[in-house]
Amino acid sequence: MNQPYPSPLILNPDLFLHGPPHIIDITGAARYHAPRIMTRKPHSHADGVETTFRVRYAETDGQGIVYSSHYLVWFEVGRTEWCRRAGIDYRRIEAQGYLLVVAEAHCRYLAPARYDDEVAVRCWLASAQRRRLEFRYEVRLPAAGRRLAAGETVHVWVNREGRPAMLPEPLHRLFESGPGAGAD
Amino acid sequence: MNQPYPSPLILNPDLFLHGPPHIIDITGAARYHAPRIMTRKPHSHADGVETTFRVRYAETDGQGIVYSSHYLVWFEVGRTEWCRRAGIDYRRIEAQGYLLVVAEAHCRYLAPARYDDEVAVRCWLASAQRRRLEFRYEVRLPAAGRRLAAGETVHVWVNREGRPAMLPEPLHRLFESGPGAGAD
Amino acid sequence: MNQPYPSPLILNPDLFLHGPPHIIDITGAARYHAPRIMTRKPHSHADGVETTFRVRYAETDGQGIVYSSHYLVWFEVGRTEWCRRAGIDYRRIEAQGYLLVVAEAHCRYLAPARYDDEVAVRCWLASAQRRRLEFRYEVRLPAAGRRLAAGETVHVWVNREGRPAMLPEPLHRLFESGPGAGAD
Amino acid sequence: MNQPYPSPLILNPDLFLHGPPHIIDITGAARYHAPRIMTRKPHSHADGVETTFRVRYAETDGQGIVYSSHYLVWFEVGRTEWCRRAGIDYRRIEAQGYLLVVAEAHCRYLAPARYDDEVAVRCWLASAQRRRLEFRYEVRLPAAGRRLAAGETVHVWVNREGRPAMLPEPLHRLFESGPGAGAD
Repeated sequence: MNQPYPSPLILNPDLFLHGPPHIIDITGAARYHAPRIMTRKPHSHADGVETTFRVRYAETDGQGIVYSSHYLVWFEVGRTEWCRRAGIDYRRIEAQGYLLVVAEAHCRYLAPARYDDEVAVRCWLASAQRRRLEFRYEVRLPAAGRRLAAGETVHVWVNREGRPAMLPEPLHRLFESGPGAGAD
Repeated sequence: MNQPYPSPLILNPDLFLHGPPHIIDITGAARYHAPRIMTRKPHSHADGVETTFRVRYAETDGQGIVYSSHYLVWFEVGRTEWCRRAGIDYRRIEAQGYLLVVAEAHCRYLAPARYDDEVAVRCWLASAQRRRLEFRYEVRLPAAGRRLAAGETVHVWVNREGRPAMLPEPLHRLFESGPGAGAD
Repeated sequence: MNQPYPSPLILNPDLFLHGPPHIIDITGAARYHAPRIMTRKPHSHADGVETTFRVRYAETDGQGIVYSSHYLVWFEVGRTEWCRRAGIDYRRIEAQGYLLVVAEAHCRYLAPARYDDEVAVRCWLASAQRRRLEFRYEVRLPAAGRRLAAGETVHVWVNREGRPAMLPEPLHRLFESGPGAGAD
Repeated sequence: MNQPYPSPLILNPDLFLHGPPHIIDITGAARYHAPRIMTRKPHSHADGVETTFRVRYAETDGQGIVYSSHYLVWFEVGRTEWCRRAGIDYRRIEAQGYLLVVAEAHCRYLAPARYDDEVAVRCWLASAQRRRLEFRYEVRLPAAGRRLAAGETVHVWVNREGRPAMLPEPLHRLFESGPGAGAD
């Protein structure tokens, strides 16, 4: 039943996942964000963190498959786990007055998920700056060895008034370091 | 309170909304979908359909603003209204065995929405083929004259077994014609 | 299609809606809350406020009908409208440090709602104290002249620290007065 | 922070959870459903099944706590796990044409849950008939040793046309037997 969507949509997904940060290019943001100096090598799929959970009936829709918006929630579940493994307590960062807001989200749906399916979300950091983070995600159905979705989110730090903020260096370093080798 | 997000994010939005179909370029889909013959002129922001509603408390999150995934639901609300104005009864199309599944979704968040804000979603069709539709959206806060978000969704038709399908020509023509002039 | 659920469930709904505050009786709360002095006559179904909107695809589930939890969100939509008609700006009350939290919710599902159905939620205040409010709701499908659900929510006022609070008298009076005659 | 709600609401919860099936009494349903012959002793809190997961940011609202409707989703998560432990594959039952619809839901909120809290949902069957099931739930914050919510749901079996149905005896027996001793 969980067959992939029509093939024209599954367009060389590896290019998509490991290639250049497309999302930046589309919006033209690259021009504004250069130079993007990374003090450490960029993170990759390989050092992603994987979280596993089951599809809730509440997440399915009249088509019998998971409704598209829930994948953004699953991305958040994966991101939360990534933070925990990196030793980041996001609640404490918010308590200090730094809020991470979503500036952009993108998801490609490759195959449907169904009620009670066990899905795995892999999350990794694609770019980390003190004002801006980019995460990537892959959603899989481990039992079928199938990818269900791939996506990215772009985030910016704001203060309690919603104004752009720069994360203090010690906190930022936790993002840059990430969960470290053998995270998963 | 509803101040826009940090300016680096508001990157020439008009380019984004009226420019080339970026989403296609990123995924490389353009190569596969050419030639994209449109028997009628492409639809545009100008002939979009606008729907207005209020933000639900349930849609806000711990940051006091609308959680990112709900914008995809709002896109659906706008799309449903677009269909109605175009004389399309999506429920009947599903009853005939054609399901429109979301293949890709993208949203850029420009400024936050808050509880009880009256928001307006404008939806228009960016591309219509018998196997595939592309919708664009703009979410605004009319009272403040501010754009909150912009996005796109790509859809494909599948049959009840989830296999790719081609929408029968008479139904497809309704999408191509759209709501017509002076829709809004 | 929107046929009612098996009749044993549709149990003299009028008794339910206009009868004594059952919810209080079940939890034993009646003993604790007496005397419940109402300075004005209790509100009733007759002076409820009605809000109309369409079912979102996102709200349906794998059974093709609206998932049960969304009715609590619809209750909130009705309650927000009730407040507006009563001249209450809930956002300003929160800004003043009084938060209305849900202490109890109850819903009976009488018949299913489906995608794009136009549903109407009627909301009225069943009891108003300075520490505690009780709202009742009725969800209908006007086109079919059918009731879909009936429910209640109990709320208490807390301060920003989550401690019980008493709403200042001038604000409380707005709740007590309600939307007034001919609200709908 | 996760302090309990004002005490007047926490009304002898044990009575509530282990007492008679209150929900039935309020709606008057008892009259219609007698005699309720249970071939086995009724299930209880003791043989409930516990499921643990973390609160998603998407589940919080502008008050910084989990929005009320999500508890009904959590109840479903607990119910799904209960079924799995009882050897019941609900997806297969649906495939055979028996759908379990929610006829009634009730939740009392005792203390708030916050983002990333690890919550535990305990679910047990309170009553099993071939046409109707009643589940009870308790939501706890294990780290704080605090109860967050308690609730019930009433369900009825319907066929694909939405008409009342009686679950075939062999399937029904799985519900009656439940997860068995030492389920948790």
